[in-house]
Amino acid sequence: MTLAGRDLISINDFSNEEIEAVLNLADEMSSALEKGKRLDLCQGKELYTIFYEPSTRTRSSFETAMHRLGGTVVSHAEAQVTSAVAKGESIADTVRVLERYADVIVMRHPLDGSTRLAAEHSSVPVISGGDGAHEHPTQTLLDLYTIRKEKGAIRGKSVALCGDLRHGRTVHSLVIALARFGAEITCIAPPDFELPDHIRDTLKSYRCKLTEYESLEDIVTEGSLVLHQAKTSSRRGGARLTGPCGQEGFMTFLLKNLDVLYFTRLQRERLSAGEIGDAAEESYRINRQLLEKSRDDALIMHPMPRTGELAYEVDQDKRAAYFRQAGYGVPVRMALIALLLGAVETGVSEGPKRKTPKLAKDVGGVRCLNGRCVTNAERYATAKFCQVNPQLLRCYYCDWMVQVA
Amino acid sequence: MTLAGRDLISINDFSNEEIEAVLNLADEMSSALEKGKRLDLCQGKELYTIFYEPSTRTRSSFETAMHRLGGTVVSHAEAQVTSAVAKGESIADTVRVLERYADVIVMRHPLDGSTRLAAEHSSVPVISGGDGAHEHPTQTLLDLYTIRKEKGAIRGKSVALCGDLRHGRTVHSLVIALARFGAEITCIAPPDFELPDHIRDTLKSYRCKLTEYESLEDIVTEGSLVLHQAKTSSRRGGARLTGPCGQEGFMTFLLKNLDVLYFTRLQRERLSAGEIGDAAEESYRINRQLLEKSRDDALIMHPMPRTGELAYEVDQDKRAAYFRQAGYGVPVRMALIALLLGAVETGVSEGPKRKTPKLAKDVGGVRCLNGRCVTNAERYATAKFCQVNPQLLRCYYCDWMVQVA
Amino acid sequence: MTLAGRDLISINDFSNEEIEAVLNLADEMSSALEKGKRLDLCQGKELYTIFYEPSTRTRSSFETAMHRLGGTVVSHAEAQVTSAVAKGESIADTVRVLERYADVIVMRHPLDGSTRLAAEHSSVPVISGGDGAHEHPTQTLLDLYTIRKEKGAIRGKSVALCGDLRHGRTVHSLVIALARFGAEITCIAPPDFELPDHIRDTLKSYRCKLTEYESLEDIVTEGSLVLHQAKTSSRRGGARLTGPCGQEGFMTFLLKNLDVLYFTRLQRERLSAGEIGDAAEESYRINRQLLEKSRDDALIMHPMPRTGELAYEVDQDKRAAYFRQAGYGVPVRMALIALLLGAVETGVSEGPKRKTPKLAKDVGGVRCLNGRCVTNAERYATAKFCQVNPQLLRCYYCDWMVQVA
Repeated sequence: MTLAGRDLISINDFSNEEIEAVLNLADEMSSALEKGKRLDLCQGKELYTIFYEPSTRTRSSFETAMHRLGGTVVSHAEAQVTSAVAKGESIADTVRVLERYADVIVMRHPLDGSTRLAAEHSSVPVISGGDGAHEHPTQTLLDLYTIRKEKGAIRGKSVALCGDLRHGRTVHSLVIALARFGAEITCIAPPDFELPDHIRDTLKSYRCKLTEYESLEDIVTEGSLVLHQAKTSSRRGGARLTGPCGQEGFMTFLLKNLDVLYFTRLQRERLSAGEIGDAAEESYRINRQLLEKSRDDALIMHPMPRTGELAYEVDQDKRAAYFRQAGYGVPVRMALIALLLGAVETGVSEGPKRKTPKLAKDVGGVRCLNGRCVTNAERYATAKFCQVNPQLLRCYYCDWMVQVA
Repeated sequence: MTLAGRDLISINDFSNEEIEAVLNLADEMSSALEKGKRLDLCQGKELYTIFYEPSTRTRSSFETAMHRLGGTVVSHAEAQVTSAVAKGESIADTVRVLERYADVIVMRHPLDGSTRLAAEHSSVPVISGGDGAHEHPTQTLLDLYTIRKEKGAIRGKSVALCGDLRHGRTVHSLVIALARFGAEITCIAPPDFELPDHIRDTLKSYRCKLTEYESLEDIVTEGSLVLHQAKTSSRRGGARLTGPCGQEGFMTFLLKNLDVLYFTRLQRERLSAGEIGDAAEESYRINRQLLEKSRDDALIMHPMPRTGELAYEVDQDKRAAYFRQAGYGVPVRMALIALLLGAVETGVSEGPKRKTPKLAKDVGGVRCLNGRCVTNAERYATAKFCQVNPQLLRCYYCDWMVQVA
Repeated sequence: MTLAGRDLISINDFSNEEIEAVLNLADEMSSALEKGKRLDLCQGKELYTIFYEPSTRTRSSFETAMHRLGGTVVSHAEAQVTSAVAKGESIADTVRVLERYADVIVMRHPLDGSTRLAAEHSSVPVISGGDGAHEHPTQTLLDLYTIRKEKGAIRGKSVALCGDLRHGRTVHSLVIALARFGAEITCIAPPDFELPDHIRDTLKSYRCKLTEYESLEDIVTEGSLVLHQAKTSSRRGGARLTGPCGQEGFMTFLLKNLDVLYFTRLQRERLSAGEIGDAAEESYRINRQLLEKSRDDALIMHPMPRTGELAYEVDQDKRAAYFRQAGYGVPVRMALIALLLGAVETGVSEGPKRKTPKLAKDVGGVRCLNGRCVTNAERYATAKFCQVNPQLLRCYYCDWMVQVA
């Protein structure tokens, strides 16, 4: 089986076997790096990084990954200012030019679905470095790699996702992958920051175990852990867990069950001032007190950058995995690049091809309801939908759902 | 003959033979790239890109060209912000430092003549990536390469240049080269966007066939092509074509004669709000209807980025050459770099040296009339002129004409 | 002796022997470059440049140095905008991630002491490319290299430092190094732009010869050189020179004694509007008239960029060393990188280790008085001090002094 020529825009673009092929090769890359072995797998190949949003880890680790593979890099670190976009150029035009210079393109863009649009116009592989609030699939690859490496497996592990689960693209890719790999998922998000509906719908199809809570509160001020359950009136699916005996006991019960606590920051750059409740950021926060109640072998993860939700005092704890997690970005991205460029074959036998989503026909005039969807911003882009059921369409670019009569 | 150590600031810095040497080598580079052959002609050499204005294609393709030649690149993608210019540094000082680090420098700058000033202060080759509204000689090299490759020759081809011919530096370099290589030139530009006088004067000296029109109008709204001729009261030289029978017939006649339609956008970044007439952009525009009237073997070219003047529906047509054109940027720039670095000799025998323009003496106190000329912005720069005739001086940096008593 | 794994944040991080080892290796690098010899000492190694302030020379010459050594570079040219810092990331977090990608990090940052904080959090060598108004140690290495190469030695040479000696980090590192290497130092700075107290205190400990003046005035307007002595009421230490016979004779006497005139610009970006006196910049300025009075073998140096203090007419003079000085940045930084990466050993026998400064204990609650000190800006950073004497603490990060009761 080969991944040569493929794009990675959504984590769902890869089958479980394909993801495992990446993680396995990342293990080999990691060993080679440790031994100081030079790899020239991608010599003569050119990687383009085109970032319309700030980045430290993603762009850097892609560029270092390419260098470690013997390849070269052309960098557009602030493409919204330094490229022809400043003169009004479209995503499609940019990509249709750069595909003639690059062997593989990594793009980050503030619009949901933008990187899918880019991939449609490129004959060379496009890797998403994050598209708006939609997905961040390579972060998920390294998150999965971290869990597998440090906890031995993903299946059956109990993973809590805490924070702004609505706008955090990192979480959107990750929660789907966790469901597909059979992890147990707990979501802890303040009101209005829960998982978006389209992600929730996707999760249902995997029949994963999903539990949701609203807050980890009063940790700092009171020194005791109080867990507020999600509003009963919630329209959400997913199970609701009721604790064994009182809030304190309930929290302890929950924490003792968690293999991984994955924190994310409030995505302030995607929120209007009114949307940022004062209390939101305080409702989930990990510090030494929470650590004390957690399992000795728990893994504290964070895609970084952190803001207030992850106290610096946690850094000293051996369970703090987030810097190691960021470090895995290089071997994982080396593996991905090498596979997409066909420099290495996956080594797993040909499985069933991932079905290309079938586009709904005769939906002329239907627009995506997501104001940040690329189809609502780039004039030439045509809205496309997949038919979920006779009443429901899913946007081909950003995965938002549209009800049709 | 060698090009080692030479600068490329104006297309007129190179003789026709030298330009052909670049294009021939570009053909070889192109074949090597297609065969995946590694070229290490410039190994150990360092290219600097110093861009004071946004760029996608030019900077990228130069950097990729250098990588494909085995060399390395240091990039200043937004030099007006990230370099010492932000602390008030002059062009001369920047160059006199960077020439000590670089083996070859590519510079883009918003002032006319700025790259000539840079070249004067550099002991290593300086290539202009565009200087204000003045010239963009490497774009011209790849434009010529495109026409030669796709139409077989330049001589005798009928080329229409449409759009903002006044502020588009791309066109200024190109129109001169087309005249020198014996193409027939048709210019279609809205009022106030015609070729500048100094270009027109240069063209005269090549005795080329130049025809000028004002507009391609009503194409979209009316579905019919109406061609407005340039105002008779115009002060311009150049022939005026009168159509055979009515406007429709005339347009058809014109289009059937054109081998190449070269479109450019309005250079909004060089215009004040008042200068941008609402109608200007609408007066030239290519879409499917215009295509239908054009020759089957016509070439639609555009230096990109496009704005409204080039409809997306044109992209599907095989005559649309603009993405291929952008793609040629890599082999053409590889050839240029390799020649200027002396990594390859031109292979053509020593011809007559291009005459270095003789500077006019005793012009102390005369200033260039071009407000965007580098000599009016950089205090230490001395205005220099070439004597065209006893009454006329040409600015050595930006080519504007000055009448003297 | 090895420098492998070491940081360079302050020039005082290196002993005299270590500095000489860098300069000696720079000589070898310089010869290799001249001979066009390829050096692959750092092949497979990755340098990161992380610049939160503009730079032409420092970033460029580091990147070229790494390329000339066969290594690769990842560049953050405008990290305050393009990195996660734009999302609120701390210096510590940035470094703790990037140390996992890079083999060596070069950082420039506007806060005093910031690069020391970075080095504390990194397991790979951190080189300061300038931290606020504090230090710029690699500029000093190349300044020393310039003096040694062009004047044969540093010891016993008479060096004048002219300009904004308070905010110019370049000068702070240099003046200490000059003192350590036994140069005679003359400082010429307008009122309020004299050397800061903490530098003056450091200099005292080297018992160097330091003379201070206030101005080089009226040079242009009067054609005669008038030297104003520092106010007698000044609180400064250091000797005061009184001239032999009148002002003109005195100035001549002074200039004839100087081997090196080192000029620096007003650091406008570190000054509020009120702090920039109109007269400040005019009080020191080198032009042809001053040159005429200077020694035939004097060296005119400047770290660049220049503003008004260094006239363009000086450039033609053979004593103008500033462009050569900038050029030495490549071999000097090559030497430094190769040594810190352990690609070359220093070749000098193991000397006495530089004493790590002993931190003062029980200073809880004491804050650094420097408003630009990193400990006053990054919340998680703890103020640390070295005990100078029972009443005096020195900030571990920015070297400012704090009196304690």
